[in-house]
Amino acid sequence: MMRVGIVGAGQLARMMAEAASALGLEIVLLAEGPHDGAISSVQQVRFGSPKDADALRCLADEVDVVTFDHEHVSLETLSELESEGHRVFPSPSSLVFAVDKGAMRDLCQRHAFPHPRFRHVPLEETVNVEEVGRELGWPFIIKTTRGGYDGKGVFVAHNAVDATRLVDELRSQGSELLIEEAVAFDRELAVLVARRPQGDIVAWPAVETAQLDGVCREVLLPGSLAPAVVQEAEALARAVAEAIDLTGVMAVELFERDGQLLMNELALRPHNSGHWTQDGAETSQFENHLRAILDLPLGRTSMTAPAVASVNVFGGPDGPPALLDCLGNALATPGAHVHLYGKETRPMRKLGHVTVTDKDVHQARRAAWAAASALGTPVPSEVEEQLT
Amino acid sequence: MMRVGIVGAGQLARMMAEAASALGLEIVLLAEGPHDGAISSVQQVRFGSPKDADALRCLADEVDVVTFDHEHVSLETLSELESEGHRVFPSPSSLVFAVDKGAMRDLCQRHAFPHPRFRHVPLEETVNVEEVGRELGWPFIIKTTRGGYDGKGVFVAHNAVDATRLVDELRSQGSELLIEEAVAFDRELAVLVARRPQGDIVAWPAVETAQLDGVCREVLLPGSLAPAVVQEAEALARAVAEAIDLTGVMAVELFERDGQLLMNELALRPHNSGHWTQDGAETSQFENHLRAILDLPLGRTSMTAPAVASVNVFGGPDGPPALLDCLGNALATPGAHVHLYGKETRPMRKLGHVTVTDKDVHQARRAAWAAASALGTPVPSEVEEQLT
Repeated sequence: MMRVGIVGAGQLARMMAEAASALGLEIVLLAEGPHDGAISSVQQVRFGSPKDADALRCLADEVDVVTFDHEHVSLETLSELESEGHRVFPSPSSLVFAVDKGAMRDLCQRHAFPHPRFRHVPLEETVNVEEVGRELGWPFIIKTTRGGYDGKGVFVAHNAVDATRLVDELRSQGSELLIEEAVAFDRELAVLVARRPQGDIVAWPAVETAQLDGVCREVLLPGSLAPAVVQEAEALARAVAEAIDLTGVMAVELFERDGQLLMNELALRPHNSGHWTQDGAETSQFENHLRAILDLPLGRTSMTAPAVASVNVFGGPDGPPALLDCLGNALATPGAHVHLYGKETRPMRKLGHVTVTDKDVHQARRAAWAAASALGTPVPSEVEEQLT
Repeated sequence: MMRVGIVGAGQLARMMAEAASALGLEIVLLAEGPHDGAISSVQQVRFGSPKDADALRCLADEVDVVTFDHEHVSLETLSELESEGHRVFPSPSSLVFAVDKGAMRDLCQRHAFPHPRFRHVPLEETVNVEEVGRELGWPFIIKTTRGGYDGKGVFVAHNAVDATRLVDELRSQGSELLIEEAVAFDRELAVLVARRPQGDIVAWPAVETAQLDGVCREVLLPGSLAPAVVQEAEALARAVAEAIDLTGVMAVELFERDGQLLMNELALRPHNSGHWTQDGAETSQFENHLRAILDLPLGRTSMTAPAVASVNVFGGPDGPPALLDCLGNALATPGAHVHLYGKETRPMRKLGHVTVTDKDVHQARRAAWAAASALGTPVPSEVEEQLT
């Protein structure tokens, strides 16, 4: 039996484990604590920090390939494992572009991948915020190059006072900085690709995503993207996959501004923008990630229905509801595919997602929000307005 | 978190666990041995015999509802658990019709469900095989009322000598007998339904099945069934579900002879004839089984593609092949959804199944057999002829 080690035991590991079970594979988790979401879906669990070299080496020793639930890893340790002969996918030399936003922006520049104007500020370099403001315009965005996710590590500097305070604060924490123009985008989109070590690539259709406070709230397919934009986005994602010698699944998050694409971020793992593939595509991102890292032929990525909407489930403000009642109400929504991650409810904690396939994306969206709302998810007022 | 206990840890438990993980449920398995197929996909595993009252009680004590991977259980013990207030679904009063073929035939007679001519022979009754032969015709079928599956416990009596030997042998093992006419059927089909405790029923489209030596080899949808036969089969399955007060998923296996349906057997759990629902229906049998036993709204059962073929994977005669090579070849078949059960290869052991959806059932069938064959499955010569 083939064994896959996963560093981290959150929802991505849980959903990878579901796909692994179907393929007859065995998963070994490296979990941080006993309440991690993936644990109840896997027999073999080891405990340890994703940055602990010994824990990673023990994991690598007992599996055929190591992969990841998240990017909070030490690239140096992973490189050591790789040089010792362990299979680690995506490889640390690719993973750096998801772990380090500075490296990702340098990659954009090197390969002329379209991107927002930016300044990558090494630790020792001083920042003249007035000058940056003149160059990128106000407000601009300050990001830590490492450690951010779901809007964390991303800050808006509205003026020089703001900017100086943020720079000083982040610098004092030892963070290298990426400063970027605040893109006044018309919409956000994401493209998901999977690539095998030998080079085969498949891409799923590009999706329109909606973020609120840096957190993905919904994914629509087809969204309002022009066919030329969809094609260009896919071509870009394929080019990035080749440039970084990807093995596994990668999500490329993009801005569209005045019909032009700009690369926002990369995730080198199954991604929230691809959860719809479980219920709306011939092969899910989780299955193709496993197939890619085991160098197995990739599955077809076409949609199984004309339209798909996927909405994230978040904990409501009033604390844990009675899950059985909630789940019953959510499942009463015709066509709702409910995915829950086995986590305890906390306000605005991401607890799951609901995917609906339909002939019409607006119908799908309405149903998906109805089910997510039944599960306690606060519905943003702009979504409520659009749905009524 | 809701917890579901499963008695038995074979492939049905494994696939139930995959569906449970997606719904955020926790599974607790009662496994017989450390190599049972479902174990690697579940964190919480207890070991014990499915007939051990203490093991069942311990399981029931720590879960919200108990359900089953197979029917090799003690109805008396389950009734005790039920009377102690535990939720056991399907309930032993329904389960008896899957556990005991004699009870199932008596049910057919009571409710006028169409069935082959039969004689239910209690243990103390003598059998005049000549008389049975005159009544049912030669050859006829002798079954043990309990304990059979996949063709086991089913025997053909070609003549009086045969019949006497079989009856004596089975009697000496303490088996109650069911003697049936050998139905010269035109085809075999199966209907899958799910029913909630409060009475809601959903049915998946009827499928045509092909058995060889009592073992299901392939499932086709649409098969060569006439629309009126499909409708009648579904109506019959719904009527049976109500008659036995079903909770959960049930498969009704049927013969079609001269355009007439005859009930063959019942399975009160997800069933081989319903594996196609994982990749070809809006809701899988495994998810709806869980939804039913937790009294949650049932999911839609419509097909997601015009045609589906599902072919079982069996161990080849030459012992264990190199799984990674096999899996690669199988996954190279476009559209092949491969499901493996985590079992060691043995000649003719059921190791998994492959499902393919397509516009055309013949194309789907061809691809599914190609992938199953790549995984080592011996292809019956009549199938080979039909496919070329």
